[in-house]
Amino acid sequence: MIKTDILIIGAGPTGLFAVFEAGLLKLKCHILDALPQAGGQLSELYPKKPIYDIPGFPEVLAGDLVDNLMEQIKQFEPGFTLGERAETIEKQEDGSFIVTSNKGKKFHAPVVAIAGGLGSFEPRKPLIEDIEFYEDKGIKYFIKNPEKFRDKKVVIAGGGDSALDWSIFLSNVASEVTLIHRRNEFRGALDSVEKVQELKNSGKIKMITPAEVVGLNGAEHLESIDIEENGAHRTIATDYFIPLFGLTPKLGPIGDWGLDIEKNAIKVNNALDYQTNIPGIFAIGDVNTYPGKLKLILCGFHEATLMCQAAYQIINPGKKYVLKYTTVSGVDGFDGTRKEAPKAVVKAIV
Amino acid sequence: MIKTDILIIGAGPTGLFAVFEAGLLKLKCHILDALPQAGGQLSELYPKKPIYDIPGFPEVLAGDLVDNLMEQIKQFEPGFTLGERAETIEKQEDGSFIVTSNKGKKFHAPVVAIAGGLGSFEPRKPLIEDIEFYEDKGIKYFIKNPEKFRDKKVVIAGGGDSALDWSIFLSNVASEVTLIHRRNEFRGALDSVEKVQELKNSGKIKMITPAEVVGLNGAEHLESIDIEENGAHRTIATDYFIPLFGLTPKLGPIGDWGLDIEKNAIKVNNALDYQTNIPGIFAIGDVNTYPGKLKLILCGFHEATLMCQAAYQIINPGKKYVLKYTTVSGVDGFDGTRKEAPKAVVKAIV
Repeated sequence: MIKTDILIIGAGPTGLFAVFEAGLLKLKCHILDALPQAGGQLSELYPKKPIYDIPGFPEVLAGDLVDNLMEQIKQFEPGFTLGERAETIEKQEDGSFIVTSNKGKKFHAPVVAIAGGLGSFEPRKPLIEDIEFYEDKGIKYFIKNPEKFRDKKVVIAGGGDSALDWSIFLSNVASEVTLIHRRNEFRGALDSVEKVQELKNSGKIKMITPAEVVGLNGAEHLESIDIEENGAHRTIATDYFIPLFGLTPKLGPIGDWGLDIEKNAIKVNNALDYQTNIPGIFAIGDVNTYPGKLKLILCGFHEATLMCQAAYQIINPGKKYVLKYTTVSGVDGFDGTRKEAPKAVVKAIV
Repeated sequence: MIKTDILIIGAGPTGLFAVFEAGLLKLKCHILDALPQAGGQLSELYPKKPIYDIPGFPEVLAGDLVDNLMEQIKQFEPGFTLGERAETIEKQEDGSFIVTSNKGKKFHAPVVAIAGGLGSFEPRKPLIEDIEFYEDKGIKYFIKNPEKFRDKKVVIAGGGDSALDWSIFLSNVASEVTLIHRRNEFRGALDSVEKVQELKNSGKIKMITPAEVVGLNGAEHLESIDIEENGAHRTIATDYFIPLFGLTPKLGPIGDWGLDIEKNAIKVNNALDYQTNIPGIFAIGDVNTYPGKLKLILCGFHEATLMCQAAYQIINPGKKYVLKYTTVSGVDGFDGTRKEAPKAVVKAIV
């Protein structure tokens, strides 16, 4: 059981920044996210794309914004449980919550902040018989640790950036990379398409197009896949099959937690502190809705900040918090580090 | 008369960012501020101090944040009227407003956004007889254009960063700089204090401490000042006297505009769009108050963003605005420039 002050569900920019604001109030956070890395959509869907409406950044790559936020919250040592989805929640007698992940891990906290974005990203799975059987036995929808594929045979399917970029990356790791796509055309950054062409030419990536994977074989673990290419069938040996057909966000099990839901978003009290109908559970960022709501990252930052004030009151009942400015008071990390403005001196000029 | 879509009163970070969000909605802004430069407190009070709680910046100097915001809004060509204070407001028959500055300049806009921070910064004036008479005739409380002092004799009074930094700066511009302070000790960045000591040693700055300016002389323009030093009086010739004794924020004339005021802040409707009791007038950033209000820059950014949505509805009644993401849609400036993410290509790999 992991105990913390605020359990944050969702490691997107809003969830990450909540760690910072909580830290200023001396509250510890643990973050749970279904994706294999922090950053939410920004890392998973468009890390190399620029965002223009983050205040103070005329332009920032989504991946860089995530890196900056990770650096900003480092002092407050957040815990991370990645690649697991929040499944159930039970309110305890003392008002605190126990959340259980889809892998059975338990988290205990007096405050739960759902920063779930558009929902947990679920992979679009190809319609192939027995595919569920091979999940964790050779089928991967996400790549968490590329070292798993060291010196293995890998087949990737898909025609977008993920398929291109992982083919490029794994061509230096796996013993064999085969990229299968139902068309000859790929859609992605020009760089990536050209790089894959080059790796194909030099024999470092095998390409089978237009083609589809139609069958999976193996007793205990995936051993080979059946391919349909121009109406003909053949079977190729592989250790792993990685279909990268995109992700669909789903509110998922959180939808059954008894929260007021409106159009796939969680209703919160009107912008006071973004608390839901269940006291102690907050919803911040794109996952919430209230009159005037805008699904913008900068709004999530504000919501996370106000939420932390209410969390402080729940965790420290009756204690009054006086807002301090970081420029004036500095920032004391849980890791013992301190950031502070250079102090003014008082010095005679003689 | 300056006509614009949104007249923003206050050029601090909230007012500046409002220009960007308005621009995304094709609304033009003009900014009016009593200080001689954009940036509000950040530029005037602590440009070289770090801020740690701007999302995505583990640390940013206040002055750099202002520079970044100015760069971010450049595409939307905001107008600026600096060094003038909003004095009166008159509602027109069509619901629009005419605001008049203390120098008689008039601004006409359908929407007014007060982003006034803690109020307009008024200089603390020394208690010297006839000082009002010499204002604009040799007495300056702000330095807007340092070239005004080229080859002139200048006396600066004060013991803080402003007095130190302007003495250093003007020592290369004015023919003579004299720094007067009622104590020998100065309070400021170590660098600045040491630099002034050095300039004193090399004769580039004259120091008179502990001393006070007690009288002003001159028929049409300031010609000399009377100084009390160790109980003795003497008179020194000067073209300018610049007392830099700090600034006090005052809500000022805006307090008389008929707005609901609570503890020196303007009440807004509860976080819906930060509109005041007068439709068409909004209050954003530190100047407003509502339940749960936090006086943080990042909250001002959010408030500015929601305000612009409501402004859009006032200016384009009945027109529906669909939120676009800058990463997806790019940003089209009023100056003809366009920012956009590199487009994906669709390309065959053969």
